[in-house]
Amino acid sequence: MAQGLKVLSAALPQDVKLETQSYDLGAQHWHATGETLPDADLESLKNHDAILLGAIGDPSVPSGVLERGLLLKLRFAFDHYVNLRPSKLFPNTPTPLAGRPDIDFVVVREGTEGPYVGNGGSLRTDTPAEVATEVSLNTAYGVERVVRDAYQRADARPRKKLTLVHKNNVLVHAGHLWKNIFDRVGQEYPEVTTDYLHVDAATIFFVTQPERFDVIVTDNLFGDILTDLAAAVTGGIGLAASGNINPSGAFPSMFEPVHGSAPDIAGTGKADPTATVLSVALLLSHLGYGDEAARIEAAVAEDLAGRDAAAPRTTDEIGDALAARVSG
Amino acid sequence: MAQGLKVLSAALPQDVKLETQSYDLGAQHWHATGETLPDADLESLKNHDAILLGAIGDPSVPSGVLERGLLLKLRFAFDHYVNLRPSKLFPNTPTPLAGRPDIDFVVVREGTEGPYVGNGGSLRTDTPAEVATEVSLNTAYGVERVVRDAYQRADARPRKKLTLVHKNNVLVHAGHLWKNIFDRVGQEYPEVTTDYLHVDAATIFFVTQPERFDVIVTDNLFGDILTDLAAAVTGGIGLAASGNINPSGAFPSMFEPVHGSAPDIAGTGKADPTATVLSVALLLSHLGYGDEAARIEAAVAEDLAGRDAAAPRTTDEIGDALAARVSG
Ligand SMILES: CC(C)[C@H](C(=O)O)[C@@H](O)C(=O)O
Ligand SMILES: CC(C)[C@H](C(=O)O)[C@@H](O)C(=O)O
Repeated sequence: MAQGLKVLSAALPQDVKLETQSYDLGAQHWHATGETLPDADLESLKNHDAILLGAIGDPSVPSGVLERGLLLKLRFAFDHYVNLRPSKLFPNTPTPLAGRPDIDFVVVREGTEGPYVGNGGSLRTDTPAEVATEVSLNTAYGVERVVRDAYQRADARPRKKLTLVHKNNVLVHAGHLWKNIFDRVGQEYPEVTTDYLHVDAATIFFVTQPERFDVIVTDNLFGDILTDLAAAVTGGIGLAASGNINPSGAFPSMFEPVHGSAPDIAGTGKADPTATVLSVALLLSHLGYGDEAARIEAAVAEDLAGRDAAAPRTTDEIGDALAARVSG
Repeated sequence: MAQGLKVLSAALPQDVKLETQSYDLGAQHWHATGETLPDADLESLKNHDAILLGAIGDPSVPSGVLERGLLLKLRFAFDHYVNLRPSKLFPNTPTPLAGRPDIDFVVVREGTEGPYVGNGGSLRTDTPAEVATEVSLNTAYGVERVVRDAYQRADARPRKKLTLVHKNNVLVHAGHLWKNIFDRVGQEYPEVTTDYLHVDAATIFFVTQPERFDVIVTDNLFGDILTDLAAAVTGGIGLAASGNINPSGAFPSMFEPVHGSAPDIAGTGKADPTATVLSVALLLSHLGYGDEAARIEAAVAEDLAGRDAAAPRTTDEIGDALAARVSG
């Protein structure tokens, strides 16, 4: 987080005054107070232009507590319906794929619906007669806005290609809704080429032919799975940035690395801040600082090109190097 | 299918009489009759020891019709709760992964519950006010039997390692049920080492560290996604076999290649029958013909080792070569 703010300051024009406020949330706060996100903090966060979220989570906190009570709570409360996750294979970055394919795509993951709505329950819990449900909720309202956002992004890119990923041969109701809206909205974007893939087939292409993708639009859960795989093939989760965007501006958008908090290396100086720095670029781009965002991305590309796996640097050293490239 | 039956005949001991009956289902039958699986066929199928299913599907049939009306109908009607999908990287087989990791794991995918139950619907369909749901149903009964099967399989393998894949930080109710039963049943298998991964993280390891897996047990939808990815990294969907198993024997188990029907190459002699032949090996192994199954697998391994991408063979030639190796 410190490196992200360092690079953010270095990137901003001289006449822009950066005001930050830090909120100490996460595992430590939960242990101390039993709270994940106090109402007062949620209120106060509304007054910011954007949020930079550090990776959360710790094995000492029961699974789901921070995820649902903090991360998903913010995504839902601030109606972050566009979960934006670019995937690019930078030169000199290790990939598990042979042949180093040319990967440069963006996943537009729906962020406020689907199986993430928390609409499940269980009956006769912890008995041999237990039944547990999870309901995926999908609305035309929610699907149309994210599909339209994805078309706009595809239309603005040179290749102008949009792929819908779902599983409409099994999840026929949600699948029908998505496909129908995808086809209808597509008529407004005649220059965008479209394509449909089942989620299982999409994972195959992610490893055999990732260069075929330009923009992908998909449901909340499929997007979760696909973007981790995308991160893996483009140099690892240590480089994957994301934006939780509310395009209307009614609430602040939130930017975060895709990776977890890695509590085992906290404070050792071994964490790679690059995913956070790239999230800062997404933040700047969202706020209209496109040139500054591009400078950060270029700095990261140059830094990666010069990296030597045999000579690792500390978290601080990487942050300093990136900040120096950005300001200089 | 013809090659699968050819190799099956070649593999069976001389004194075993093979009786087969063929059912002409799929796209053509649907176009001609509007039926996917007539009740009489379903009844008659019950009298067999096992079913070998050819890949189904055709772009001329609306998405979901054959999948739900034939394939899933059989899986549910015959209570195929163990969907078994081995993944092995054979020598000389192309993989998209650099460094050719040593891959040899089995996914035990639940086959009769989860988001596949068809328990969804839509309200105000095709209007701007549409709401569509998909319900994932999970029962202690259903989860425990598949988890126990997976422990047994892990216990019988040299590495004795079982990984549960779910998403229990978001799908907290279904996730609790799975994790709780996984931990409890594990006490009966003290020699099996266990591990838990979220589905998104699991896709990362499938491409960065697939050698870490031995047996994986997971939900119906996660298993669908993971096994396509597993097929992709182990030489492609053309080699991936699967069994839809009812371990109780109350209904016949069903074996099928994971790949689709590829109607564009039907009849051209270009289809690779290897996934069907490996499905025949799973069928034999299920019916107690372990040696015969092993002979087929060895024949496939030898055949793959001798393959020359520059000299492709026809479907028939590959089937003949495999049958010749199997018979001796
Ligand atoms: C931590 C978890 C709730 C989250 C998600 O599933 O969305 C994470 O995996 C992500 O992709 O941001
Ligand atoms: C065809 C489809 C219904 C099926 C599934 O989703 O189970 C297939 O993808 C599979 O993996 O066998």
